[in-house]
Amino acid sequence: MTVNRQLDSKQRFWAIPHRAVQIEDRFWQPRIAGNRRHSLPYQYQQLQSSGVLDNFKRVLGQADGAYAGPFWMDSDAYKWLEAASYSLATHPDPELEQWVDDTIALIAAAQERDGYLDTYFQWVEPDKKFTNLAMCHELYCAGHLFQAAVAHFEATGRRTLLNVACRLADHIDAIFGPGKLEAADGHEEIETALVDLYRVTGTERYLNLAIFFIGQRGKADSRFRWELGHLDEIAGKPGKPGLVNPQYYGSDEQYDGRYAQDHQPVAEQSEVVGHAVRAMYLYSAMADIVAETGDPRLLAALERLWQNVTTRRMYITGGIGPSNRNEGFTRDYDLPNDTSYAETCAAVGMIMWQHRMLQLTGEGRFADIMERVLYNGFLSGVALDSRKFFYDNPMQSAGDRHRQGWFECACCPPNIARLLASLGKYLYSRCADGVAVHLYVQGSARVSLDQGDPLILHQTTDYPWGDRIQLRLELDRPAEFALRLRIPGWCRRHGLRVNEEAADPAVENGYAVLRRRWEPGDRVELSLEMPVERVAAHPAVWQTMGRVALQRGPLVYCLEEADHPVPVARIVLSKDARFTVRFDPELLGGIALIEGEGWVPELQGWENTLYRPAGAEESYRKIPIKAVPYYAWDNREPGSMAVWISQDLIKQG
Amino acid sequence: MTVNRQLDSKQRFWAIPHRAVQIEDRFWQPRIAGNRRHSLPYQYQQLQSSGVLDNFKRVLGQADGAYAGPFWMDSDAYKWLEAASYSLATHPDPELEQWVDDTIALIAAAQERDGYLDTYFQWVEPDKKFTNLAMCHELYCAGHLFQAAVAHFEATGRRTLLNVACRLADHIDAIFGPGKLEAADGHEEIETALVDLYRVTGTERYLNLAIFFIGQRGKADSRFRWELGHLDEIAGKPGKPGLVNPQYYGSDEQYDGRYAQDHQPVAEQSEVVGHAVRAMYLYSAMADIVAETGDPRLLAALERLWQNVTTRRMYITGGIGPSNRNEGFTRDYDLPNDTSYAETCAAVGMIMWQHRMLQLTGEGRFADIMERVLYNGFLSGVALDSRKFFYDNPMQSAGDRHRQGWFECACCPPNIARLLASLGKYLYSRCADGVAVHLYVQGSARVSLDQGDPLILHQTTDYPWGDRIQLRLELDRPAEFALRLRIPGWCRRHGLRVNEEAADPAVENGYAVLRRRWEPGDRVELSLEMPVERVAAHPAVWQTMGRVALQRGPLVYCLEEADHPVPVARIVLSKDARFTVRFDPELLGGIALIEGEGWVPELQGWENTLYRPAGAEESYRKIPIKAVPYYAWDNREPGSMAVWISQDLIKQG
Repeated sequence: MTVNRQLDSKQRFWAIPHRAVQIEDRFWQPRIAGNRRHSLPYQYQQLQSSGVLDNFKRVLGQADGAYAGPFWMDSDAYKWLEAASYSLATHPDPELEQWVDDTIALIAAAQERDGYLDTYFQWVEPDKKFTNLAMCHELYCAGHLFQAAVAHFEATGRRTLLNVACRLADHIDAIFGPGKLEAADGHEEIETALVDLYRVTGTERYLNLAIFFIGQRGKADSRFRWELGHLDEIAGKPGKPGLVNPQYYGSDEQYDGRYAQDHQPVAEQSEVVGHAVRAMYLYSAMADIVAETGDPRLLAALERLWQNVTTRRMYITGGIGPSNRNEGFTRDYDLPNDTSYAETCAAVGMIMWQHRMLQLTGEGRFADIMERVLYNGFLSGVALDSRKFFYDNPMQSAGDRHRQGWFECACCPPNIARLLASLGKYLYSRCADGVAVHLYVQGSARVSLDQGDPLILHQTTDYPWGDRIQLRLELDRPAEFALRLRIPGWCRRHGLRVNEEAADPAVENGYAVLRRRWEPGDRVELSLEMPVERVAAHPAVWQTMGRVALQRGPLVYCLEEADHPVPVARIVLSKDARFTVRFDPELLGGIALIEGEGWVPELQGWENTLYRPAGAEESYRKIPIKAVPYYAWDNREPGSMAVWISQDLIKQG
Repeated sequence: MTVNRQLDSKQRFWAIPHRAVQIEDRFWQPRIAGNRRHSLPYQYQQLQSSGVLDNFKRVLGQADGAYAGPFWMDSDAYKWLEAASYSLATHPDPELEQWVDDTIALIAAAQERDGYLDTYFQWVEPDKKFTNLAMCHELYCAGHLFQAAVAHFEATGRRTLLNVACRLADHIDAIFGPGKLEAADGHEEIETALVDLYRVTGTERYLNLAIFFIGQRGKADSRFRWELGHLDEIAGKPGKPGLVNPQYYGSDEQYDGRYAQDHQPVAEQSEVVGHAVRAMYLYSAMADIVAETGDPRLLAALERLWQNVTTRRMYITGGIGPSNRNEGFTRDYDLPNDTSYAETCAAVGMIMWQHRMLQLTGEGRFADIMERVLYNGFLSGVALDSRKFFYDNPMQSAGDRHRQGWFECACCPPNIARLLASLGKYLYSRCADGVAVHLYVQGSARVSLDQGDPLILHQTTDYPWGDRIQLRLELDRPAEFALRLRIPGWCRRHGLRVNEEAADPAVENGYAVLRRRWEPGDRVELSLEMPVERVAAHPAVWQTMGRVALQRGPLVYCLEEADHPVPVARIVLSKDARFTVRFDPELLGGIALIEGEGWVPELQGWENTLYRPAGAEESYRKIPIKAVPYYAWDNREPGSMAVWISQDLIKQG
């Protein structure tokens, strides 16, 4: 495949790496610091206590006992290494670096001479390597190793892990490919990771292998289908036939490739299906390949898939994958609130995909979704104290859903860690004619302009609480370029001033474009009106019929029982309810609180009655209500929570 | 334990057996005929094709191969025998009787010399009898055998199956009891069946064994807990340790007896918990024991449990057990509509329990619940063609929930069959001073009055479609007694005439009591106003906030997509909507249809939008709506269904 770097070069963006971005605000900075101070050390402890590192030691003869955990335990170590490496890139920390080095040494030692590395197969089923690709996640684990290696190399300049990754990639490349083993992994991940590895090493074989892998999906002679018919020959638990996830079977007991996006060739896909994390990693890889090759059929498929998920299958929080049955997608407009799965890892994957689409196209609609997921469905995944995590993120709770310290399948905590530790890279991009600001976060970014001139862009803002963003351009000398400022899709009115003078530039693809000759110290002020809005969902979403959600700026709000005298599902809004916004620095780490009035049904007459005629006797009383950002829920005493609030069923009396 | 038959003898009822009752209406008679003509032969076929009967043959050396199905497969045969016997009692059928005799012969031949009978253990794990009581349902199967035997004996007067039952009961009695094996079955059933067996045989040991078994629940040294700690020693699948249902573990990984009502001694229980069918069979047994012993502590517990379930944990259809996780109860007011489990077997159990409470107390509130379940949450379990069945009964469907021909765990179809075949016994009771009519069904009942005088009570009615019931008393000579006519709890106004003259007798415990000297041919006419009512659920049931259900008489209605141009979840009622009722003899076997107007949201502007500000642009259009009885849903083309309808969120425009 010919590499083609000419894709839409006037339109597209190139992300500024997180190493060049400083985050100094009161919203994200404490989360990133908490991630560094609590999550990373805590997760390193978990790697030890859950047996992840012991599995490597077993291979080395340094530990005994049964293989610990599920097949994909190795990936927990790799994801932690990736997160730790991102953190080291911006916040040197000798102790963390030592843990990283120790872990890398262990991994490197466990690698076989031919490059193979997967402790489950090395320790438990050495003769079953690459036989149960649908289930056993060998290539998935390899992908996480590659991404960790790239992050570690970029953070430290050292090749200790990168060499391990390349040896494994070479081994896989020797086994898989046209005329060799023609198959891919059940859980996508290696595809996007191979592109990362290609970008760092320049080894074109890795890109071609990624292209090969995405081409394996949806073939008439599906490898996964073959495996289902040959369970006795493939990897499983010792002494038992190969494992299979029932999700690979349709209701007719036949193979159903949708679970692993194996139902159609990727370039023909139009509908987001199956396991949501797998889907997001696949689409990310497709976008990576489009970035390298310009393949228009893949780009068209991504556009169809994006339309499907954003207009039919996404929670208001940006969460995706409503069902816990397949950890994934179901059908259009099926978005249950109490059983919403909306896995945190799927939110991470959604952000990764949106970020890639944004770079490919330069279109703000992708940044809109990226921001929606980031501030809501992703951030809800981690507690304010950085020590507890949601695996699934419900839109409604009766009070029995709480974050946990760890999971048997511990994919989400290190996924959160790697995203938070690299958050900087989602904020800015270089574009052909200048620089673009996607997310408003106080801090600064170092950009190298076309002529090689350095620009430091300083942001001062209290976003998402405040509606003003001040930018100061630190330049050595005047320079002509375009400054693109994203006007979020949620924003109905914005204002712009350059050096105190009002400006009204065109908004192109969701970005206000200020093209001029900039002087050192020039200032730009952007204001984004952020009133409280009620949001309705499409009437086909039956679970939200008659309900509204509250949103302000990028934040979706919810009601929590901690702020109310009754379970929040009983609260009803009248259509003319007014809301005020007040910043409370003491509450939930400091939040803008939405306050207003709601109605709750009176309970008299209901004492020993479960059903009664709905008539004149129904009456409601007014109560003050408070809404808090969805991401901050379940950080106080346990209680009910609701994003979607009943509206206007009130007989005032 | 001293037997005490003196419980509330002035108040209590004694059910008229179904053999003495004729059902000749257009509502139930076709269902009973369908049960006889289709369900019973079809289920006999299933006993053959699913391997139930082969398991008995295996024990006899007449068949080979692996044991078929789950542990409790034998009970499918027993429940079918019970249903078939009830049917033979009212509708002789030589072919059916031959099948019954063949099946009984097979069962009798498979019984071991010591009386033991359970084909799973006989064929697969003969050395593991009575070791895994929590899971393996041996005593549960025995109970179903006893009930089949009693039904068969009462239908035919022959003891072929009763002898098998008594030998097995004697064997169990020799093994279980104080100082012997002190344990009960994880799934209650044998307890109520032993009381049945006692009543037919007069063998007091059986009653005492029933009392012993209910006394095993909630002990500090729970046998089930012991089994969890000794899985290597108890029955399981061949070559594996004992099976355990994860529901026996709480969230803290410790034993949680609630799944099998083993959390407290039964006389102390107040909350309906765990597996709903188990709970219903337990409460039925407790009521049976109260009927025999008068135990006031058991009766008080039953009253508490009844209050809990009917005022906190019951669907409007009478369905119970909202969760598929434990096939049972969760917490107060948790009644989800789309995922409602509401197992058909639990509805059968609920009817059995209500019927027993009604006989014990003579209070109409139990008949109210019995009727609610019977006409709604039970009857929905079987298709109009008597050939397909619901295992779980949702209150709302997106169009993907349909009855099936059979189930791997086929408990529900024969449970429906045995209830329909014995429906007559739920209609009338003898009471101390006369006779009581609980359910209004055209037909007749033969009653023997106190003096031995025969009374034939003729009912003419089109209930539940029509609101009039005519009773004619066929007597040989005048007789003085009380005729108690139930005034249903749903009825707000009723009228009574005796021989064309208005009467207004007192309503005692839910029954209008006509005490007089009756002449042969006397006529009574009862009218029960049955307007269409909107019903609301307690505000604590968040899943129905802002919604109402439609009810007329004993029937709960629903909307089906077959009658509407849009998915029914989008339909909204205005508060002033009026309804009319029209009988349509062609529709769904003949139903009274509720017609009116509803509103549906317009879709313009929503084409490519999943979320948008909820504002002035929302508009609705009027459509005619039709509601059909809930029991009749899913008998036409597949589509969405809803019991609970949104109300009054309308901007008319």
